[in-house]
Amino acid sequence: MVNNKKCILRLSRYKKALTRLRSLGFKKVFSDNLADAIGVTPSQVRKDFSVFELSGNKKGGYSIDDLLEKLNRILGKEEVEKVIIAGYGNIGSALMKYKGFEKEGINIVAAFDTDQSKISPKAQIPVFHIDEMKAFIIKEKIKTAIIAVPDMVAQQIVDTMIEAGVKGALNFSPLFLRVPDEFVISYVNLEVELEGVIYFVNALNNPKNNEIADAD
Amino acid sequence: MVNNKKCILRLSRYKKALTRLRSLGFKKVFSDNLADAIGVTPSQVRKDFSVFELSGNKKGGYSIDDLLEKLNRILGKEEVEKVIIAGYGNIGSALMKYKGFEKEGINIVAAFDTDQSKISPKAQIPVFHIDEMKAFIIKEKIKTAIIAVPDMVAQQIVDTMIEAGVKGALNFSPLFLRVPDEFVISYVNLEVELEGVIYFVNALNNPKNNEIADAD
Repeated sequence: MVNNKKCILRLSRYKKALTRLRSLGFKKVFSDNLADAIGVTPSQVRKDFSVFELSGNKKGGYSIDDLLEKLNRILGKEEVEKVIIAGYGNIGSALMKYKGFEKEGINIVAAFDTDQSKISPKAQIPVFHIDEMKAFIIKEKIKTAIIAVPDMVAQQIVDTMIEAGVKGALNFSPLFLRVPDEFVISYVNLEVELEGVIYFVNALNNPKNNEIADAD
Repeated sequence: MVNNKKCILRLSRYKKALTRLRSLGFKKVFSDNLADAIGVTPSQVRKDFSVFELSGNKKGGYSIDDLLEKLNRILGKEEVEKVIIAGYGNIGSALMKYKGFEKEGINIVAAFDTDQSKISPKAQIPVFHIDEMKAFIIKEKIKTAIIAVPDMVAQQIVDTMIEAGVKGALNFSPLFLRVPDEFVISYVNLEVELEGVIYFVNALNNPKNNEIADAD
C-alpha cells in the first residue's frame, strides 16, 4: 500500500495537471512540464513515476492518456465515490455545490443537519435530519464523509459515522478528533491556515520578530 | 523569525484549544490537556512553550489568560487583520459568511468577482468588480488575500495582488502559482484532500493494494 500521504497528494496533483493539459489538446507531457505545474523538481516527478511503473522517457515524454489511466487505477477512482456531508451550514452547503468534486468523480449524495429549515429530503441532493444519518450510511454503504458541523458536536458525529461503517473523513472542525487507528482523517482548518499566512506576512514585514528562534 | 510552518500551525491550534477551555470556565491548563486536544505529545507542548518562553510548570500548569496573551502577541494578532476574497463563487461566498474567521480577529472587508449579478458594492461586506481590486488593495493597504477564483485565472489574479502590495494568500485554486520567494502562499486543495481520504479508505479496505510500495 502507498502509505505516504504526501506522495498520494502529489499523484492527485499530477492527475489534475494532466487533465488540464489533455483538455488543452496535448497528447504528451515531459517531467519538466509536470514539475513546473505542481511545484516540485523534475527528478521528483521521475522518481514518483518510476516507483509506480508509469513509463515514458526523458526524450519522448509520457503519454497523457496512459498516465491518466494508470493514475486513476492507483488512486482507486475507477468508480464514482459516494460521499455524505454532515452539517449544512456555510461550509457544508458550499461543498455540496462545489464543481471541483464532480470533475474528480466524487458524488456528494446527501447532507445532514439538525436545523429543520435546512432540511429538504426531495432536493436533487437531499438534506436529511442528522438523526437519519446512521441508517443512510448503512443502507448506502457510505465509506467517506465530510464533517462540517459545529466543533462542539464533531466528536459525537464522527463516533456515529464510525459505528455505521464510515472508514474516512475530511474534517473541517478545528479540534483534534479521537478515531481508531485504521480510520483515515484529514483536517482542513481554514482559520488555522489563514492565521498561518497572516503570521508569516506580519513576521516578514516586521524585522523585530527575527529574534524569535525556530522551534522545530 | 519562526520560519517553521508546522510550529506556527501548532501555536494557532493551542490558541484555539485555550480559547475553548477559557469559555468553559477553566483558568489553568496542563501540557497533557493541550496535547490531547490537538493530537501531539505532552513533551512537544512543553518544548514549544519553552522555545517561546511561555512559562508554567508541570505541577501547577499554565495560566490560560497568560498563554493566550502571549500567543496572540507571537501570532501578530493584536490588531484585527483585514483580508479580501478574490472570487465570489460557492467557496468565496461561504468564506465571507464563515464565523470562524471573525472569532480569530480576521475581518473579511471585501470580495471581488467578474459576474455583474454578484456585485453589490453597498452590502455590509461589499462585492466589487474584479477590476476595482487593485485600487482597493492599495487604498486599504491590504496585506493578505484569499484566492477562490476559477483556476484558469488564478495566476493573473495573484500577479495583480502582488503588484498592488499583497504579501500573502490562502489559495483554493488547485494548480501551483508562481510567486516571488518572499510571498507567503498556503494551498487548500479540497479535491486533492478528499481524493487522498478516498484513496486511503479504498487502499485499507482492499488488500490487493498492499503490493504497491511506498514511494517516499
